[in-house]
Amino acid sequence: MKAAVLVEPTEFEIRERSDPSPGPDDVLVAIRDVGICGSDVHYYEHGRIGDYVVEDPLVLGHESAGEVVEVGENVDALAPGDRVALEPGVPCRRCAHCKRGDYHLCEDVEFMATPPHDGAFAEYVSWPADFAYKLPESVSTTEGALCEPLSVGIHSCRRGGVGTGDTVLVTGAGPIGLMIMETAFAAGATDVIVTDVVSEKLDFASERGADLTVNVAETDLEAAVEEYTDGVGADVVIEASGAEPSIRSTIDVVRRGGTVVLVGLADEANVPFDVLDVIDNELDVHGSFRYKNTYDAAIGLLEDDAVDVAGIVDFESSLDDIDDSFQRAMRPDVVKGMITFDD
Amino acid sequence: MKAAVLVEPTEFEIRERSDPSPGPDDVLVAIRDVGICGSDVHYYEHGRIGDYVVEDPLVLGHESAGEVVEVGENVDALAPGDRVALEPGVPCRRCAHCKRGDYHLCEDVEFMATPPHDGAFAEYVSWPADFAYKLPESVSTTEGALCEPLSVGIHSCRRGGVGTGDTVLVTGAGPIGLMIMETAFAAGATDVIVTDVVSEKLDFASERGADLTVNVAETDLEAAVEEYTDGVGADVVIEASGAEPSIRSTIDVVRRGGTVVLVGLADEANVPFDVLDVIDNELDVHGSFRYKNTYDAAIGLLEDDAVDVAGIVDFESSLDDIDDSFQRAMRPDVVKGMITFDD
Amino acid sequence: MKAAVLVEPTEFEIRERSDPSPGPDDVLVAIRDVGICGSDVHYYEHGRIGDYVVEDPLVLGHESAGEVVEVGENVDALAPGDRVALEPGVPCRRCAHCKRGDYHLCEDVEFMATPPHDGAFAEYVSWPADFAYKLPESVSTTEGALCEPLSVGIHSCRRGGVGTGDTVLVTGAGPIGLMIMETAFAAGATDVIVTDVVSEKLDFASERGADLTVNVAETDLEAAVEEYTDGVGADVVIEASGAEPSIRSTIDVVRRGGTVVLVGLADEANVPFDVLDVIDNELDVHGSFRYKNTYDAAIGLLEDDAVDVAGIVDFESSLDDIDDSFQRAMRPDVVKGMITFDD
Amino acid sequence: MKAAVLVEPTEFEIRERSDPSPGPDDVLVAIRDVGICGSDVHYYEHGRIGDYVVEDPLVLGHESAGEVVEVGENVDALAPGDRVALEPGVPCRRCAHCKRGDYHLCEDVEFMATPPHDGAFAEYVSWPADFAYKLPESVSTTEGALCEPLSVGIHSCRRGGVGTGDTVLVTGAGPIGLMIMETAFAAGATDVIVTDVVSEKLDFASERGADLTVNVAETDLEAAVEEYTDGVGADVVIEASGAEPSIRSTIDVVRRGGTVVLVGLADEANVPFDVLDVIDNELDVHGSFRYKNTYDAAIGLLEDDAVDVAGIVDFESSLDDIDDSFQRAMRPDVVKGMITFDD
Repeated sequence: MKAAVLVEPTEFEIRERSDPSPGPDDVLVAIRDVGICGSDVHYYEHGRIGDYVVEDPLVLGHESAGEVVEVGENVDALAPGDRVALEPGVPCRRCAHCKRGDYHLCEDVEFMATPPHDGAFAEYVSWPADFAYKLPESVSTTEGALCEPLSVGIHSCRRGGVGTGDTVLVTGAGPIGLMIMETAFAAGATDVIVTDVVSEKLDFASERGADLTVNVAETDLEAAVEEYTDGVGADVVIEASGAEPSIRSTIDVVRRGGTVVLVGLADEANVPFDVLDVIDNELDVHGSFRYKNTYDAAIGLLEDDAVDVAGIVDFESSLDDIDDSFQRAMRPDVVKGMITFDD
Repeated sequence: MKAAVLVEPTEFEIRERSDPSPGPDDVLVAIRDVGICGSDVHYYEHGRIGDYVVEDPLVLGHESAGEVVEVGENVDALAPGDRVALEPGVPCRRCAHCKRGDYHLCEDVEFMATPPHDGAFAEYVSWPADFAYKLPESVSTTEGALCEPLSVGIHSCRRGGVGTGDTVLVTGAGPIGLMIMETAFAAGATDVIVTDVVSEKLDFASERGADLTVNVAETDLEAAVEEYTDGVGADVVIEASGAEPSIRSTIDVVRRGGTVVLVGLADEANVPFDVLDVIDNELDVHGSFRYKNTYDAAIGLLEDDAVDVAGIVDFESSLDDIDDSFQRAMRPDVVKGMITFDD
Repeated sequence: MKAAVLVEPTEFEIRERSDPSPGPDDVLVAIRDVGICGSDVHYYEHGRIGDYVVEDPLVLGHESAGEVVEVGENVDALAPGDRVALEPGVPCRRCAHCKRGDYHLCEDVEFMATPPHDGAFAEYVSWPADFAYKLPESVSTTEGALCEPLSVGIHSCRRGGVGTGDTVLVTGAGPIGLMIMETAFAAGATDVIVTDVVSEKLDFASERGADLTVNVAETDLEAAVEEYTDGVGADVVIEASGAEPSIRSTIDVVRRGGTVVLVGLADEANVPFDVLDVIDNELDVHGSFRYKNTYDAAIGLLEDDAVDVAGIVDFESSLDDIDDSFQRAMRPDVVKGMITFDD
Repeated sequence: MKAAVLVEPTEFEIRERSDPSPGPDDVLVAIRDVGICGSDVHYYEHGRIGDYVVEDPLVLGHESAGEVVEVGENVDALAPGDRVALEPGVPCRRCAHCKRGDYHLCEDVEFMATPPHDGAFAEYVSWPADFAYKLPESVSTTEGALCEPLSVGIHSCRRGGVGTGDTVLVTGAGPIGLMIMETAFAAGATDVIVTDVVSEKLDFASERGADLTVNVAETDLEAAVEEYTDGVGADVVIEASGAEPSIRSTIDVVRRGGTVVLVGLADEANVPFDVLDVIDNELDVHGSFRYKNTYDAAIGLLEDDAVDVAGIVDFESSLDDIDDSFQRAMRPDVVKGMITFDD
């Protein structure tokens, strides 16, 4: 099979690799669509993300969907021909985190495209059947692949307890911020405020339904939120930009007794945080890491047209053009690029 | 002012009463719309509901909205001309329930149209300002009045923890069942199944978006749910019919580890319940009583068109025709009748 | 190795069986202590519990602890010589329940001494290392074995949300009821009321710290609770008797807005339940099935002397005397019998 | 009556004031015991705490208990002669926070000894009856007064979800840290680690039951916790020192998926916080502000001897010696001083 292998920063090679062979609990999936995620781009540019370093040639890609072509002997729930979305992190199933249902916190999770685990920019992937979710007819494999960023949105809204009637503020109008907005509305939020520093991104968020957008490069966010919420503040603030000023601002715009969810990975670990406000206003600040138990919900919401993910796709390209695609994905006006494979 | 007073079962009199005068924390509201609730009809027919007996002439009506015409000296948040929905139960504010935020469980709550407290079929009502919720321009007083049954829906979905991706089964397609379906979708449910024994009601539920309707007079519910959910069962079952067979069936159609919410008041207190299933499948069974902290959410959902309540109104009539209206509201094909007042 | 095999109701045979051989993730445990549980006795007497029928000769016993004598190649956390308590139910690790952390609800759980899975009345058991919990020096294998019923107590108190300052009522003063009382105090309950119909059991509960005991054969429970709680009712009621009158009474003695936990398996599935009270008082009724994620807590509480389990043991006996021991365990005055093995 | 009035920093005057007269829902309480809190000392030294400035002569003291001498006409639950603990913050009862049960977050709360509201260093206080909690015979008014700091402990443990089997780390061994340790054990924590920079305070914590104490001026906390918890970290970390290094360290010593509660008020609002760790380890960080719905639990725990508060009292003195008492309370070796009144 063909796979795009990152051999060094900014250099992919299309290599032939032997087809993977599924174990008894696995399915072999012919990949159809893979999204290009910001973390893929980061590995592509820098060869590392923090402590994760690409030392051996690595297959990137973790937002993927395809068609089952073979199933292991223990697999009953799927059959060849089924179209599936792949959840990219597979845990050990045995540690305290796994037993508590926090399998995404498992220290031994094997996550696609995180060194040394290969990802999905390849013709075939063998994957545990219980992390492959069947797509109904009305959900495309493009949407299936985008269940991954949508899952980040679902999980962060769950972490924030977003529910009917809530006012939610989302900082950052990139793909994750947009997915959070989609999920927040689906979960009953009646008002979603979105911030960014790029007007075009905010315009796109407005078109997709944001009740208020704030360009924090130009406008005082605290004042804008104060006015919009009659001085109350947002019930839930979800930080998706990773930018230090945004992280700091979360405390200023959430209501007393409200909830802040941190999703966007900051470049700098240490951010000055107003802990007095956290105490005086008795805030809840929740980290949100990847997701767990979200794929069924993601697929259900897509089937219902309760969320839109395909609308964030700017372009589709083939595996052979992956270098160009990554260059293109780095442009600030691109929200999401996809690599697609022929049937 | 004029008020419709129930003097004995099935007999209203339109009487002149002195205008109420608001206390320092109250607003005086000129009533515009009042819904006719099943409990109003029950008092009208029988003069009592369980232990609550109409001993003195009583003004019925607790689903109401109107226009503020006067405010008490401590009231800042509202002004004459504001249109408001009235939350009909006012608690003592001092007991353990109130302090815990369970003000709807306050033993000393004064609830409109529950003897001996008068309700809203009257030209004016004086009401605590903090239980009068301002309506935005786009929400009518008809919708404002129907925030009451909508609140029952919101509260029961909250009690059931309905969230993104859930399959929810609602037993009973009357006004409360319909409000629960509206709220379940608004809270992220992807599949809502509705049951009833009247085909017309189920057709109406289908038109309004139910994914599956089951006429339990004709069809085996457990088998239907088993098929629809691939043998899993519903994540949340909300019982809104009060019918004993429906109450019993909740246990059979909920998934293992799932949640049952009981809303509909049974005629008989004691219903045989499969407690072994409750244990073996580790179910959560929650009673849901009225609502708390729902009016802001209800109004927000209406403003967003995230729910539809006006569509359940079959007719509007004037206070002078209240007897006819109650007769009409008793017909099985009527979902909701309203009494309206001229501006 | 020797194992006690139930060949037909009321007849054990001590048979030679080949020593189990641990897989790569397993430990081989030389059993030291096994408690005789009511379910063991039920299989012994009747050859079945509900749908679970002993068709082939079965090794009973699921409350066990012993010493590790061999470890599989993947096992790092345990070593020969470690003393361990065995959690008797091992799930599939792949289904939706397992992934949610509700592994105890896994439909494919393999549970010791539940047909067709053998239990622990045997010299050796091979068991997944992650369901074998190391005992600190100060915790005996007798206590280790009794982590099983203690886990039932911990789980039911967690299901009931028992916390600091709560008044908890426990119906049934058998071993499970006593474990619930121990855990309720450990979790911060300030008042524990215990009911039974056998005075001696209530006396034993009193000696162990019950604040109030009520013999429901003689005394009106609702009146007793009303008096003890100044008319409020218990915050949490945990039903551990399985007796229909007790199950029904839970609704009458819990406070408005309070919680009922059902643990004790009723003989009859269908118990008339006052659903009107569940609604009007907005109760939470939770089934509690076995336990999950409790063994570490159980061992920690034992190490701290925060709970006492050894005090409920009436007698210890050897495997060779297992028939006599089961006969003895059936006597109403016996709380707990143990089978012990020589080192 | 006599009251100790802070006329300017470090200067009390004992003044005659007219006896307060209870309103219809109030009780008049003859004060018996009042604790000297760190915030009282701060006002005494500096005449302000942050934005709260003592502009008019102020009566300090908010940890108080006494004897009811008169009751308002609506008060049924209390009678003259009852001994009561006073919860010092009385909310508006009408805002969204109050209705949600978060009355401690009410913006209009009137809190004893917070300008401009007088406190309890006075012979009599009139107080709403529902914020006066009857003490049982076995609980002294000294203990009643100390229900206030105990409530801080109860609330922070509830915010942290402390339960059976948890390992809890408390930073700071002052009165609040000690109350948190007491409550953590009462709530089922099996291991409590306490930190400070003063050896004597840590010795006192050890005597009172801390499983491990760490002098963070001398010892590397992260390494100590790593060793004690076998590399896992603490389930819950409760920050009670307000010291910046302690606040920062919370993130390093909590387990993955664990909870940090911030209680101690920092001098500096902005503390650099490792937000990447909050996300990667999916932590929950909760502010904990004062308390709500804790007094009944506090009194119940005291009645049960499940917690000890009297043991932290270093000295008792009379109102006339209040200046000396405050000087003494400022000494680093003093945990808690009390002002007592004759019967």
